[in-house]
Formats: sequence, C-alpha cells, structure tokens
Amino acid sequence: MKRIAVYPGSFDPVTYGHLDIVKRSLELFDQVIIAVLSNTMKKSLFTADERYDMLMKVTSVLPNVQVDIFSGLLVDYIKNKSAIAIIKGLRAISDFEHEFQMALMNKKLNPKIETLFMMTNEKYLYLSSSMVKEIVELKGNVLDFVPSYVSKKLKEKLNLN
Amino acid sequence: MKRIAVYPGSFDPVTYGHLDIVKRSLELFDQVIIAVLSNTMKKSLFTADERYDMLMKVTSVLPNVQVDIFSGLLVDYIKNKSAIAIIKGLRAISDFEHEFQMALMNKKLNPKIETLFMMTNEKYLYLSSSMVKEIVELKGNVLDFVPSYVSKKLKEKLNLN
Amino acid sequence: MKRIAVYPGSFDPVTYGHLDIVKRSLELFDQVIIAVLSNTMKKSLFTADERYDMLMKVTSVLPNVQVDIFSGLLVDYIKNKSAIAIIKGLRAISDFEHEFQMALMNKKLNPKIETLFMMTNEKYLYLSSSMVKEIVELKGNVLDFVPSYVSKKLKEKLNLN
Amino acid sequence: MKRIAVYPGSFDPVTYGHLDIVKRSLELFDQVIIAVLSNTMKKSLFTADERYDMLMKVTSVLPNVQVDIFSGLLVDYIKNKSAIAIIKGLRAISDFEHEFQMALMNKKLNPKIETLFMMTNEKYLYLSSSMVKEIVELKGNVLDFVPSYVSKKLKEKLNLN
Amino acid sequence: MKRIAVYPGSFDPVTYGHLDIVKRSLELFDQVIIAVLSNTMKKSLFTADERYDMLMKVTSVLPNVQVDIFSGLLVDYIKNKSAIAIIKGLRAISDFEHEFQMALMNKKLNPKIETLFMMTNEKYLYLSSSMVKEIVELKGNVLDFVPSYVSKKLKEKLNLN
Amino acid sequence: MKRIAVYPGSFDPVTYGHLDIVKRSLELFDQVIIAVLSNTMKKSLFTADERYDMLMKVTSVLPNVQVDIFSGLLVDYIKNKSAIAIIKGLRAISDFEHEFQMALMNKKLNPKIETLFMMTNEKYLYLSSSMVKEIVELKGNVLDFVPSYVSKKLKEKLNLN
Repeated sequence: MKRIAVYPGSFDPVTYGHLDIVKRSLELFDQVIIAVLSNTMKKSLFTADERYDMLMKVTSVLPNVQVDIFSGLLVDYIKNKSAIAIIKGLRAISDFEHEFQMALMNKKLNPKIETLFMMTNEKYLYLSSSMVKEIVELKGNVLDFVPSYVSKKLKEKLNLN
Repeated sequence: MKRIAVYPGSFDPVTYGHLDIVKRSLELFDQVIIAVLSNTMKKSLFTADERYDMLMKVTSVLPNVQVDIFSGLLVDYIKNKSAIAIIKGLRAISDFEHEFQMALMNKKLNPKIETLFMMTNEKYLYLSSSMVKEIVELKGNVLDFVPSYVSKKLKEKLNLN
Repeated sequence: MKRIAVYPGSFDPVTYGHLDIVKRSLELFDQVIIAVLSNTMKKSLFTADERYDMLMKVTSVLPNVQVDIFSGLLVDYIKNKSAIAIIKGLRAISDFEHEFQMALMNKKLNPKIETLFMMTNEKYLYLSSSMVKEIVELKGNVLDFVPSYVSKKLKEKLNLN
Repeated sequence: MKRIAVYPGSFDPVTYGHLDIVKRSLELFDQVIIAVLSNTMKKSLFTADERYDMLMKVTSVLPNVQVDIFSGLLVDYIKNKSAIAIIKGLRAISDFEHEFQMALMNKKLNPKIETLFMMTNEKYLYLSSSMVKEIVELKGNVLDFVPSYVSKKLKEKLNLN
Repeated sequence: MKRIAVYPGSFDPVTYGHLDIVKRSLELFDQVIIAVLSNTMKKSLFTADERYDMLMKVTSVLPNVQVDIFSGLLVDYIKNKSAIAIIKGLRAISDFEHEFQMALMNKKLNPKIETLFMMTNEKYLYLSSSMVKEIVELKGNVLDFVPSYVSKKLKEKLNLN
Repeated sequence: MKRIAVYPGSFDPVTYGHLDIVKRSLELFDQVIIAVLSNTMKKSLFTADERYDMLMKVTSVLPNVQVDIFSGLLVDYIKNKSAIAIIKGLRAISDFEHEFQMALMNKKLNPKIETLFMMTNEKYLYLSSSMVKEIVELKGNVLDFVPSYVSKKLKEKLNLN
C-alpha cells in the first residue's frame, strides 16, 4: 500500500522553507500531496490557481510530489485521498499553539487522521510568506528566500517591474 | 452579601467550552453574569442581540445565571454590578498572555477588581468560536461543539440550510 | 455554607507575592487555608514546621486565614477540608504550563475540585522564594520582598548574622 | 565616533512605555533616532505626520533624541543613518517571538546590524498603543499611560471632545 | 524497504500516553523501535532493565514493535538501526522548546535524521511519568494512567504494598 | 567616558554561541567584561578557575575583552566595574522568561542597571553548555560547537582521552 501524506497550506507564495519540508517528507512517504487552500474567506495575494502554478513550477524536479487545490474540511480531503498523515512545519511557539489546536480538532473530527510536525530548518526559522511579500513591497531582494520564478511573480503582482 | 462574578466575552457564538466555564463558576459564586461585549469596533458574525438571545436559550436551565449586554469599560461595568470578580477561561499560552495584560490593565484602572482564571476543560481545549464558524462554513458538523440551537442559527446565518 | 479555598505551596519562605494572593483571595472566599506542602521528596531550606511558623507570624493580622501543613494528595486534602477551590498565583508562562498540567490532573483525580488562578501583582512579577534565598546568600537586602521576620529567619538559617 | 541607535515603531500613538525605552537607550548611546514607520499597508489611527508631531512634542526635553519618518527596509535605513543598533522593547512572549524572527531576518539581510532588546519596565507591562486607543474609545482616562498632549490628540481624533 | 522509526525516551515508567504514541506510530511505519535510554548520568526510579521489562510486557500484543535499550548518541543509534525517523510526543510548550533544540542538534550531528512530532492525545495532556510516580508515593490510584502491571511494579519499587 | 558592558554567565564551558555574543557586543561597547559566576551553590563541571582559564585562551585574540571571576550580587559587581549594561544572549522562550525575571529583579535592586538582550545567532540556537557536555560524555565530536582547546579540556575532565 502506498503511503501518502498531505502537506496543506496557503503557499502565498511558496518559500524555500516550504520546499525544505516537502523534500524531507519525501524521505518518509511514498507520495506527498501539496494541498493549496482555496479559502475564499482568507485574503491572499495570489489566487489559488496562481499559487498552484508556482508550486507546480518549483516542484517539477521532485519525484512523487503532487500539487492540488482543495476547499472544504481538511479531514474530508485527507480521507478522499487515502492519505495517512497531515504534514506541518513548525517554526515557533505561536505556530505550535495554533497547530496544536488544529491537530486536536482534526483528530476530534476524524480520529484516524494523524498530524505530523517537522521542525523548520534553522536556516529558514525567520522565513514566512508574509515576510517575503513585505520585503518585495519594500523593494528588497528575496532570492535567498524563494525560487527566482516566485520572485518574478511577486514583482509582477506588486507592479514593481 | 451575594457574591457576583462577571464572565465577559464575545460569545460569537457561545460554545460548550463557554458553558463549561459558566457551570463551574456557579459552584464558586452566588450569581454569574454572562456579559456580551457589544463592541462596534470588533467585527462579529452575530449581532449583540443575537448573541444574547442564544445565551439566554442555552442557559435557561441554569439557576443564578444572568445574561447581559455591555459596552464601555469592563471595570466600570463590574463596579455597577457590584461584582467581585471577572471570570476568564484559559486554553493556551497565547490566551494567557493577552489575558495577563488585560488583567494587569484592569487592576490598574480599578485595583479592587479581581480577575480569576479557570483552565478550560481538556475536552474543549481545541475549541473556539472561530473554529466552529469555520467548520460550519466548510459544511462540517458542529453538534459536538455547540448546542443544537446555536448550530441551527449558525447555518441560518451562513445561508447554508 | 462557608466558602473555603485552599492556597497550597512550599512557602520556602513566604514572600510578599504570596501574601498579596492571600489578601486578594480573602475578598472572594469566607476562609482561606494556606496549606504548607510537607513533601519529604522535595528539598526545602526550612522545615515544614518552620515554614508554618513564619506563615503564622506574618498572617496573624489577617482574619479568616488558617495555616496548615499537609502531605498526601492535594485533592484528598481539599475534600477533607470541604474546600471548593484551589488558589494558585501565576507569574509567568512556565508557571502557567506546569499549573495547567497540575490542574488537569487534579480534575481527573477529582472532577469536583476547581483550580482558580490569579495573576501575580505586577510589583511581584520578578519575585520567587528561590530568588529571595539566593539574594540572602549573596548578602543582599530582601526587606522589599519578605516581611522582616522572614528576613531574620533567612539570615539565621544561612548563618549570616 | 558617535554611537547611534534607531528605535523603530508605529508609535500610534507614543506611550509612556515607549518613552521609558527611549530614556534608557540614551544612557547607552550618543544618539537615539525614533523612526516612525510610514507603512501604507498597515492601518494606523494617526498619520505618520501626526505620530511624528506627537513624538516631537513629548521628546522635546530629551537631549540627543531625533525623530524621523521612514519607509522602505529597516536595514537600509539603519545603514544610511550609520546606526550601530536597532532598539526594541519586549513586553511578552508573543512580542519576543515576532521580534526574534524579525531580528534573524534583518541579520540575514545585513549581518552587520544588531538588534538589542530591552525589557519593558514592569510598570508598563500591560501597556500598548492599541489598549490606550481602546480605553479612549470607551471614554476611559489614559493620563497614566500617555502624556496629556497625546491624550488630547486621541480624544480629538476619536471625536470625543 | 522497511520503514523503521525509533521512539526514544526514559519510560520511567511507561504510561498510557507513551503507548498511545506507539500505536499511532504503527499506522505510519512498518516497525517502531521503543528505545530505552540507559543514561547513567540521569537518575531514574527503575533500572534500564526494569523499564525494558515493563515495556515488553505492555507492548506484547502490538505487532511490529521492538523494545531496545540504548546508550551513546541517539543519531548513531538511529543510523545503526537503519531507521528513517525519530518519533517524539509533544504535550506542552516547554516540551516543544526542549525538543526543538534537540531536533536541531541531532540534525546538525546527522543531517539525514528526521524528527517527527506527534501531539499527545488530549486525554493524556496532563500525564507524565514523574506525575505518576508522585501520585503513587502519595498513595493515590494510577490505574487510569498506566497498565496494571506497571502500577504493581511502582508499588513494589516504592515499598508500598 | 569608556562604555563598559558585563557579560555574566557560568561558561561551563564557553561555546561558540557565547563567543558570538562577545564579538557582537564589542561592536557596541568600548569594553566587554566576561564575568564568570563563582557560585558555590550551583554545581559546575569545571571550577571557576578552569572556566576563567578557558575563556582567557579563547578570547586572547579579541581586543577590549576582559575575563573576570565574580561572586556576590551581580548588581554590585556592575556598579563596582562602572559598567552601564548587562549583556545576555537569548535562545528560546524559557531563556526569555527566566532572564525577564532576573532583569526585573536586578532593576529593582538597582534601577540604574540596564539589561540588554541579544538574539543568539541562528547557527547556535540549539547550542548550550550542557548539550556539549552530554555529547562529549557520549563520545561525540563537539568541534563544531566549542574551540579545540575547550574540547580537549572537556575530554580530560571526563577522563575520556
């Protein structure tokens, strides 16, 4: 039986921190599905399609990675995909708390679904999608934080080219 | 002298976690006033009146509970009600920090007012009004988290019936 | 019915931070029992009897306060005393976490027992019995932190007079 | 060589907590530049010019203080001003985490820039600009928290005079 | 290729919280090795052999579980066992911090070794081996927290039968 | 006037994390005094003299650094040295809390003394003297964490050569 894990998130946009988690997850599972949250209630800079497109581009070299867009309850999505785990990266205490509550809630909604937490690489501890967006808006260089394709899309989006 | 405690909050909407705190407070005080924040600055899904109505319905069986709407400074409200304590439920570290600052500020504004913290029941650690709203929006079942009357009102509000 | 609360602790020795919690508890309950932990497993500078003696001295002016020594499970002690609540003072996040686990465990051992948390007065946020002991050992003045009787006993104990 | 530090922030509006940090910084550096963030993306009650004006008024008696408005990346600003350090005040754990990430990110963007953290005075632990605004909106008195000039401006802004 | 995970710990003694993590790990890996730390520097109530014996007894019904004693560096042990991950259970913020540092250090010592964190079941959030020992010493009942065999061994060890 | 800062600690033994803080402090102050705590109450692997010796060796190339041993109250030591600040490195939330309490206490004991916190370099976030000792005891290599002289002394001390 193929062991499938789902790595859900906004990926608005994907950073090297996210890609590090994806690569490490591939050592543990047969397939990793990157699931882009298409949540109409949460504001995002990029549309779900644009976020999907960036993820496809920057993960094209990684085997066993699938990119997908999902809406609805995460626990239902996991079940439909026959996945055995949710993957989450942790950077800080506040991440931990929020994710802890989410994991307990998801376990309540479906006791069979497991959430696995990976510590963010120390190199990316300071990194978040929102910080990257802020730096681009302030005309800073983000090539240390995101792939060049993502950097280009960020500049286009923010009309800075 | 009657010992009165005030349990303030948004209750947008009331959950089983809130009701657990109310019931436990009744063991300690002669009367518990559930005080609905009518704060025009803070966005809420339900109006103050709707939140009041739901609280009235779900606490009707509890003796010595009063539901009220308040605006203005909490410390003034406490004083007007001749209450001796503010009741707060704590779930997590971030709750703790924010509530800690609020309690210090309230003590500064009126040194006679005491804030008492109760730990949330472990069964409701993952529970918050915002999570309940999110689950309903994603068409999930929330009957484990809120009374059926509240679940019905949530579905009506979000036009999901 | 008399409302009794128990304020348990090591009190090794009692500080102004502890006394502040006692005084504030008296506004909420008819009687407050300060319960000195006589735990042979935990090292203390003062014996349980010495800690009891100091508490008696410094609370003699407070009405409705009782000092006691206890061993065994706290939940059994609470029940025997017909108390309705355990009082705890919180200073910091690490206090919070430990006390949170203790409160959940005590609720598991006896669901009827409630733990109430009070925020430490901002004046005493930095204060702990161990800091006071350390300062006395380093020959510093602790009269801002403990009553003079306790300061005298600390110096005697540490052979510094 | 003159040692210059930059104290960046929103100062929306300046509180006694901020002024305490400024005064203490002056003991350590030859000059302190209070740098008002003019961030069009972040909503503020007062315009950058109004915040600048209030800071000028309330720091006029302090020698070696300069008030400035800045936009763009903080690390670039620091470099242009030939400053050797960023000053930050910490109140709580959540401050700490966010500031920790910012400090690591700024060090990544320019390894020569040092962030120094000062603990907020215990008297101002509960104090934040947003709490002050909330109290004024609820018609409370904030003269313990901000200079009278700032209190007056707050009331004007919120049309409460 | 068989996917092996190592679940290291003191297990002094094993609790239902540990067993819950083991069972959930078995859903994710082909084999789980429970690795008892035989650390002569750290004081334990039970010897490594006694802790091993208790784990063997209480996991005998679980397929694909191996119990082992190890000393030396965890990263070397993982490599020798050809394991792909270290499993850790998280209960609270302080666990998180310590484990975060350990995970970063282990990654530094061997970049190929992954640490996976699982949230402790809400039912066991308050549970720790040291709390269980304390309750037995105070003659409380721990059958809700550990298997009866472990409870018996605890009483024997503490000469309480 | 020469600006002097004191960097106090156990340094049992000094690590690259400590040295990073020293070097960064030298950019801000005219002189940095590394003050080794000679606390007879706190157990240490190395004597105060041995810790002093190691610090002297590994800081010999750094200008404006002085190494010293001190006992007694830190605030008195600071005053005697005419220092204007205490330097502390922060790695994690638990560091933060403890240091926060120490800083408030020291300010209470002497309001003129300022504590400045620097974030530990991300490269050394996982690093502590106790982890280094543990790795050496388990025969691991610590040359990435401490200078070779310190590594040699650690092996001698633990009779591992």
